[in-house]
Amino acid sequence: MEEDPALLLRVFDLNCWAIRYLSKRRQERVRLIGDVLRREGFDLVLLQEVWSERDYSDLKVKLRGCYPFSHYFRSGVIGSGLCVFSRFPILDTLLYQYSLNGYPYMLQHGDWFCGKSVGLVGALDRGRCWHGSHNRFAPPSCQLHAEYCREKDAYLPHRLVQAWELAQFIRHTSKAADVVLLGGDLNMHPEDVGIRLLRGWTGLRDAFAEAARFEGCEDGCTLVPNNCFTVKTELLPFPLGIRIDYILYKAISSFTVKCEELKTTTGTVPGMDIPFSDHEAVMATLHVRRQGCAAGANLGTVEPTLVDVVTEARTEVGVGLRAAQRQRYSTGRMAVLALLLLLLQAAAALGVLAGLAAGQPFPKLSFALLTFLAVGVLLLATGLHLFHTMEVKMLQGTEEQMRMALRALQEHP
Amino acid sequence: MEEDPALLLRVFDLNCWAIRYLSKRRQERVRLIGDVLRREGFDLVLLQEVWSERDYSDLKVKLRGCYPFSHYFRSGVIGSGLCVFSRFPILDTLLYQYSLNGYPYMLQHGDWFCGKSVGLVGALDRGRCWHGSHNRFAPPSCQLHAEYCREKDAYLPHRLVQAWELAQFIRHTSKAADVVLLGGDLNMHPEDVGIRLLRGWTGLRDAFAEAARFEGCEDGCTLVPNNCFTVKTELLPFPLGIRIDYILYKAISSFTVKCEELKTTTGTVPGMDIPFSDHEAVMATLHVRRQGCAAGANLGTVEPTLVDVVTEARTEVGVGLRAAQRQRYSTGRMAVLALLLLLLQAAAALGVLAGLAAGQPFPKLSFALLTFLAVGVLLLATGLHLFHTMEVKMLQGTEEQMRMALRALQEHP
Repeated sequence: MEEDPALLLRVFDLNCWAIRYLSKRRQERVRLIGDVLRREGFDLVLLQEVWSERDYSDLKVKLRGCYPFSHYFRSGVIGSGLCVFSRFPILDTLLYQYSLNGYPYMLQHGDWFCGKSVGLVGALDRGRCWHGSHNRFAPPSCQLHAEYCREKDAYLPHRLVQAWELAQFIRHTSKAADVVLLGGDLNMHPEDVGIRLLRGWTGLRDAFAEAARFEGCEDGCTLVPNNCFTVKTELLPFPLGIRIDYILYKAISSFTVKCEELKTTTGTVPGMDIPFSDHEAVMATLHVRRQGCAAGANLGTVEPTLVDVVTEARTEVGVGLRAAQRQRYSTGRMAVLALLLLLLQAAAALGVLAGLAAGQPFPKLSFALLTFLAVGVLLLATGLHLFHTMEVKMLQGTEEQMRMALRALQEHP
Repeated sequence: MEEDPALLLRVFDLNCWAIRYLSKRRQERVRLIGDVLRREGFDLVLLQEVWSERDYSDLKVKLRGCYPFSHYFRSGVIGSGLCVFSRFPILDTLLYQYSLNGYPYMLQHGDWFCGKSVGLVGALDRGRCWHGSHNRFAPPSCQLHAEYCREKDAYLPHRLVQAWELAQFIRHTSKAADVVLLGGDLNMHPEDVGIRLLRGWTGLRDAFAEAARFEGCEDGCTLVPNNCFTVKTELLPFPLGIRIDYILYKAISSFTVKCEELKTTTGTVPGMDIPFSDHEAVMATLHVRRQGCAAGANLGTVEPTLVDVVTEARTEVGVGLRAAQRQRYSTGRMAVLALLLLLLQAAAALGVLAGLAAGQPFPKLSFALLTFLAVGVLLLATGLHLFHTMEVKMLQGTEEQMRMALRALQEHP
């Protein structure tokens, strides 16, 4: 046992808030992020919200020396915003786009246009300390749908579908990895059902909870009031801030991982007047060691609570499903009404043409305006109806998968 | 070596062409499919184009006795059409929706609305012949974008992106499986670049090419002229028909798989006047055996050709990328022109309101019509521009992944 020398793996995770034209002092901050990454020399860097490919290219050029391998994940209209820099060769990548991601008509929230995704990178450490063997990491970087209002969170079902798909994606793709790392802005508090579902269903451990040493913002918060870019009113109910950025990990096969140290940045960058981003960066030092015998993931002990967590998540998805069904119905009804109005107008117009009606019953302009209005409503309502039909299907699919998971958990506890 | 008794695995695959209101004699054919499945008792049944959940439920009830486990994959507006019936417990499922799937405005082709996907099922055989061990199958069922015109195939880049994503999905999810099976309507001929890419990049073998015995349509064709539902004019250049439905397989870890027998149906069902579908069913009998020592997938010998195949596919994706960039540009230009027209009209209307113009320069009705036209064009062009922006991103992403794969192949041959 424990005969192999250990590998210290240093991981950096940050939501960079680098939206062109919208994020304050973006270029300056991206430069600062590049500086710290070059100076500190991490092993793996997982970045989110790098929306501009130009920023990624600049970082890539700057970091070429210490991080020879990198990948930018493209998706959606704007992009996924995800990128990875690595000291280890990147063997392979895979992008999984969540099937639900908000509503296209909620332009002010914009999540739909980003194509939020999880990006998987298969990396390889050819260190000598592994007795010539290859150690594979499968570190996905991800971002889930943002929470805009905690009290009345209309996006909770979508975020739960994403958490479930993320967990399923990790389960299915990590089977041959030695170490699985997940870093990202999960937009969920540690006690939220989505986080409990993700951790329970995958067996991932929270670096903050497991860390032997911690240094940084109180309670590990990553969105804190003393960061000058955070919106203070949103954080009013949380005087210390909230923790929504995570580094999660687990070892598979014959490896063990321990979190030796976890750090977060604490607002302003030393010697500057601004922080790196509106989020704090999370930095973990993981201690990876090969064991003499294979250690199975210890899922047995968590399963009684796992049943409760999956049940709770399924209930929430069910609530979302019924809301989506109602919206599908009302948009469908609106489309039918618009179609009826159009048919009525067509009948009236035909009547006038055929000389059935005496004279001109409507002024031409109002008639034309009404027609265009009806056509507009018909198109819009049909589009929304199709969208909500898709939403219903996805929520139903997730609910059924969760039911299947519950049955499996109850049958083979 | 070869000390274990073997397992005979019988797999059935069919594109059912069961589109509500559109497919001819749908209910009768679904009943016939159910009858043959119950009578023959396969181990795994992979069906595509079961668009109506009602048909799936009917089949499920009918087949409960011999196939106690089943799953229907939901996606897109209409659905994925994919379902699986199994004699083995289904442990887990995962649906991957391709990032590109035709154009929403090509209503007559309809692929976009189906949310074409690959559905993965993790199944477990608890047969006694495995010395108490568990044998896992990872059989994805899938359907790729249809080919509507072979000479001028506008969807080739999309189908190649799908073939690439399918191959990546299989590579990443099958690492811990013992046997990987892929059944489905791939909409590609055996010599097409997409099939060569899929087979080369995953190491999957074609059951038709490997089968010790074959029985069925000549050359294994699955879309044949003497099926009364096929469109004869489309098959004119191919007097024997075409082969676009496949069962592919490979063994991982310490197993070997051989195809003992492959069969296809040959048009009309015996004793009836109709076939099961417009496609022929493919039925494989696979011989799965545990080996004494682990047999690595023999990828080494195919790699020199693999480089050529990936290069060819990358060239085609590049052609699609340039077409998408042109469309993105022209739709963007149209949106800008419509916006300019609107601004001009607004200026003219303001001019009239401010009393700058003498009298009424335009008739009100034409002015209103022109405004609505401009708004319509603006909305439509903006929507298309966003869509083609997404398409460009996805094609760029795939091209880059292929470039990365080529570099890896060339560096480590």
